[in-house]
Amino acid sequence: MTKQIEVKKRILEENEKAATRLRQSFRETGTLVINLISSPGAGKTTLLESTGAALGTTRRLGVLVGDIATERDADRLRQSGLPARQILTGGSCHLDARQIDGAFTGWGSPKLEILVIENVGNLICPTSFDLGEDFKVALLSVAEGDDKPFKYPGIFSRAAVTVVTKTDLLPHVTFNMTRVRDEVRSLNPAATVLELSARTGQGMDRWIALLEERLAAKTAAVPAAR
Amino acid sequence: MTKQIEVKKRILEENEKAATRLRQSFRETGTLVINLISSPGAGKTTLLESTGAALGTTRRLGVLVGDIATERDADRLRQSGLPARQILTGGSCHLDARQIDGAFTGWGSPKLEILVIENVGNLICPTSFDLGEDFKVALLSVAEGDDKPFKYPGIFSRAAVTVVTKTDLLPHVTFNMTRVRDEVRSLNPAATVLELSARTGQGMDRWIALLEERLAAKTAAVPAAR
Repeated sequence: MTKQIEVKKRILEENEKAATRLRQSFRETGTLVINLISSPGAGKTTLLESTGAALGTTRRLGVLVGDIATERDADRLRQSGLPARQILTGGSCHLDARQIDGAFTGWGSPKLEILVIENVGNLICPTSFDLGEDFKVALLSVAEGDDKPFKYPGIFSRAAVTVVTKTDLLPHVTFNMTRVRDEVRSLNPAATVLELSARTGQGMDRWIALLEERLAAKTAAVPAAR
Repeated sequence: MTKQIEVKKRILEENEKAATRLRQSFRETGTLVINLISSPGAGKTTLLESTGAALGTTRRLGVLVGDIATERDADRLRQSGLPARQILTGGSCHLDARQIDGAFTGWGSPKLEILVIENVGNLICPTSFDLGEDFKVALLSVAEGDDKPFKYPGIFSRAAVTVVTKTDLLPHVTFNMTRVRDEVRSLNPAATVLELSARTGQGMDRWIALLEERLAAKTAAVPAAR
């Protein structure tokens, strides 16, 4: 068991080095990078399709999509007009920074303004792996139930933003939004909690505004050209 | 990376030994053991509450519940009258056979007829860890979408039974049941696919009948007392 811990520690250290390099590179280009994490089927790809529809003509937006199998999500995103590259993890339950580096290399110019990393559908494993992102976004669909933040404290304490998705299903499920907000804030007092339905568009304006605000802050911090 | 593979191999070998011991023990007592696997929020606990309501007075049913944090699911099950023990994995994304052994020890007599192991909410990690079960059951909620079997082939190829849950939401989501059945059967031609809503009770009869059939087969195979 000691060897197991030792190996895990080394993997995380190697990941951290790669993430630090990525973060520096994204700082230089002023690219806002979001690490999107949720259970399978919480609506990551649908949120990105709607985000692309809202921002795709005004912002250079791209997506790296992680899955253990199939190119389905990248195909969906490309069909909606978003540049997307699929990373197949071959069974691994999360993306790591070296995979991001490999897949992002040669994305070319013009540089992306916003890069969304759609992580493997999993509320647990992706939490520990820094991908050089500006912040993590956790998605929670109302169909999953309002008890999830305390059951999966790792992700909800680390995500700067929690997006409650599929709010169009609220009339048909038991879901206490106040409970979710309270639990998320108790784990992470600085967290922003948004509610939206990418399907109906309700609440999308606040998500888009959040991206624009964070992008403006990132761009303002770009180091002067040398 | 070689060390990583070596450590993983050793972990799986140790797990396999413990699982073999468990399986032998469950064979002697004729206890039917089910390893229930799904995404967070697919309805594992709700299905078990309804199963307990249907079988609890006629069958000795018990549940071991795995979560990374909180006793919420075991509390819910106990409130519904089901004997349940919580296993907290402390961050690990799956249960292993030694945890089952530890938690099941001293469950006492009379022996359980059916033991359900509600695994950690995760479609990936639990797939590789044999818990001494008779078979795996994968749950997929209609709110998660119909593209999941090919995206998570590990679990859908290994689960003898796939239960499509929350069918009461079908009028409100886009979900092609035929596609799911086709993908599951393509991964696992022998799989049984059931559809149900534990909330309305629709389809529960087929699930209960399946448990009774499997229990009868297990009981018939109990070695004669020595």
